[in-house]
Amino acid sequence: MEQPPVHPDVQPIAFLLGTWTGEGKGEYPTIESFAYGEEVRFWHVGKPFLAYSQRTWALDDGRPLHGEAGYWRPKPEGRIEIVLAHPTGIVEIQEGTVANEGQTVEVASTSIGLTTTAKEVTALKRTVRVAGDVLSYEVRMAAVGVPLTHHLAAELRRA
Amino acid sequence: MEQPPVHPDVQPIAFLLGTWTGEGKGEYPTIESFAYGEEVRFWHVGKPFLAYSQRTWALDDGRPLHGEAGYWRPKPEGRIEIVLAHPTGIVEIQEGTVANEGQTVEVASTSIGLTTTAKEVTALKRTVRVAGDVLSYEVRMAAVGVPLTHHLAAELRRA
Repeated sequence: MEQPPVHPDVQPIAFLLGTWTGEGKGEYPTIESFAYGEEVRFWHVGKPFLAYSQRTWALDDGRPLHGEAGYWRPKPEGRIEIVLAHPTGIVEIQEGTVANEGQTVEVASTSIGLTTTAKEVTALKRTVRVAGDVLSYEVRMAAVGVPLTHHLAAELRRA
Repeated sequence: MEQPPVHPDVQPIAFLLGTWTGEGKGEYPTIESFAYGEEVRFWHVGKPFLAYSQRTWALDDGRPLHGEAGYWRPKPEGRIEIVLAHPTGIVEIQEGTVANEGQTVEVASTSIGLTTTAKEVTALKRTVRVAGDVLSYEVRMAAVGVPLTHHLAAELRRA
C-alpha cells in the first residue's frame, strides 16, 4: 500500500512518528530493579490517530519482557486520548495534553480494565518528551496497594 | 531475533497463529451495511500469550477502515482472556472459552473502557472458528442504545 499523507488532526503529535530504540530502567517497591532494551513504533494510516506498539527485552539474554499496543488520538485544544492493551491482562484509557512547543505528552489513566488473572493496577501516569531524535518517557504506577510511584524511565533514539 | 518455541500455555490456541486475509460484512441498525477487506495477524514471542492485530479496508478504494490490537491469554481449563484496544477510543476485556476440538473461541466483554469522545459501546461478543486454513468470526455488539445485535462476520484464509 502507498503511504497516505499524515491526517491534519495528527499533526500536533507527528513528532512521535518513527521507530525508536534504546534502554530503560524499571523499579517498584515490590520488585527488584531491572534494566531493559526497548523498541517503540509510532505509525499512521492517514486517519486521525497514530498506531503504537512497544516491546522490551532483557539486556542480558534478549528474552522478551513486556509489550504494549494501542492508538494515540489527538483532539482539539491540545487534548489527547490514548487506548492501550498489555499482555499482562490490562487495558487502559489515558487522557491528557500535548504541549507542542515542548513536544511533550502528559497523560493519566481515566479507566483501567483488568482480566480475572491480572495484577491489580489502579492508576498510571505517563510523560513522553521528544527532543530532536531523542524520545524519553517516565511512567508512574499505582498497583498492588502501592500508591502512584515512579516505575519506568527510558531514553530512546529515532532509528 | 530467532523465533523461540511456542509457550506450552499457548498450545490450546496455536491454531490461530499466522496471517489471515479475506473479506467480511458489517451491519448495524444505526448504519448502512458495508463490505470490507481484512488482515488478521496472530504471532508469539515465546511467552504465554499471542499478540494480535487486525486491520480492515474498504473494498472499493482500499482506504483503511478499522483496526484492533491486543493480546490473547489462554488460561487453564479452556479459559481465555483477551485485551484489545481500538482506534475508535475503546478498550475491551473479553473472557470466555476455547473449545480445542472445534478450534473455536467464544468470548464476551467483561469490561469496556471509553475515551471522552468515543461512541458508547456497552457490550461485545465474539466467536472465532478455525477449520483448516479458514478462520471465520462473528461479532455482536450493544452500542448507542441498541441491545446486543449482529454486527460483523468475515471469512479469512491463512496466507
